Amino acid sequence: MTHYLEDLTPGRVFSSPSYEVTAADIKGFAAAWDPQHFHLDEETAKASFFAGLAASGWHTAAATMRLMVTSELDLPLGIIGSGLDYLKWHRPVRPGDVLTLRIEVVETREMRSKPGLGLARLRVETLDAEGLAVQTLETQLVVPARTGSPVQ
Amino acid sequence: MTHYLEDLTPGRVFSSPSYEVTAADIKGFAAAWDPQHFHLDEETAKASFFAGLAASGWHTAAATMRLMVTSELDLPLGIIGSGLDYLKWHRPVRPGDVLTLRIEVVETREMRSKPGLGLARLRVETLDAEGLAVQTLETQLVVPARTGSPVQ
Repeated sequence: MTHYLEDLTPGRVFSSPSYEVTAADIKGFAAAWDPQHFHLDEETAKASFFAGLAASGWHTAAATMRLMVTSELDLPLGIIGSGLDYLKWHRPVRPGDVLTLRIEVVETREMRSKPGLGLARLRVETLDAEGLAVQTLETQLVVPARTGSPVQ
Repeated sequence: MTHYLEDLTPGRVFSSPSYEVTAADIKGFAAAWDPQHFHLDEETAKASFFAGLAASGWHTAAATMRLMVTSELDLPLGIIGSGLDYLKWHRPVRPGDVLTLRIEVVETREMRSKPGLGLARLRVETLDAEGLAVQTLETQLVVPARTGSPVQ
């Protein structure tokens, strides 16, 4: 079921499939986008700040995006945002971590400049298998109103 | 030359190599991490919000990380942050865009809990060939003091 702006009531929560992070994933992402030794090699990572192989935070963020795209949240235009209000990495993600999302609607508002379109502020928590957040971000997504007219 | 906390004076600017974004890159990143049609297919992207093939914002962010790792900024522990204070995507990145970074030191401070370590707040602008920002973020990185003792 497609979700329009009117459906995104504050406090509403959407979940996602899960993603199991492997050492090969961690190294593959890092080789392409964040080539630092603590993301690439178990041995040298032991002596690093992370004290062991850790996923790039950008890997966690990219995985979060993929989980959003495949989550229960089904927006008419897709998942389109103009940025992040903040992003926090609470702990390093390790091989074997199983990640899932908790997406909560914080607030919605209409865009005065574009009748029929609104912005939904979402808090997206990326949770580990114990339900603890490894990453939290807030973003505002572009969401059409069902009526096609300004939200009342 | 390695940069310690004392070297990161507010206003100091570091540059990076450049990265030319291709349609193949855009589709490849999207297939892995942001599988939405406006990042995957030129034809269907034309009718989308982006009115043409556009890079995932997370692709731009990941490319920014790689440019940071290969930039003039050379930190003793590597590029390690606990998150972003904000991130803004100013316009969609398109095939043919050539991106480079302007990394500016905003401020530094010592961590009271960890003598010898400090945090450097950086503003990282991802610029196009005309020098206009396609993305801006601020992040705080963990940077040792040269002295190994608390920063005075």
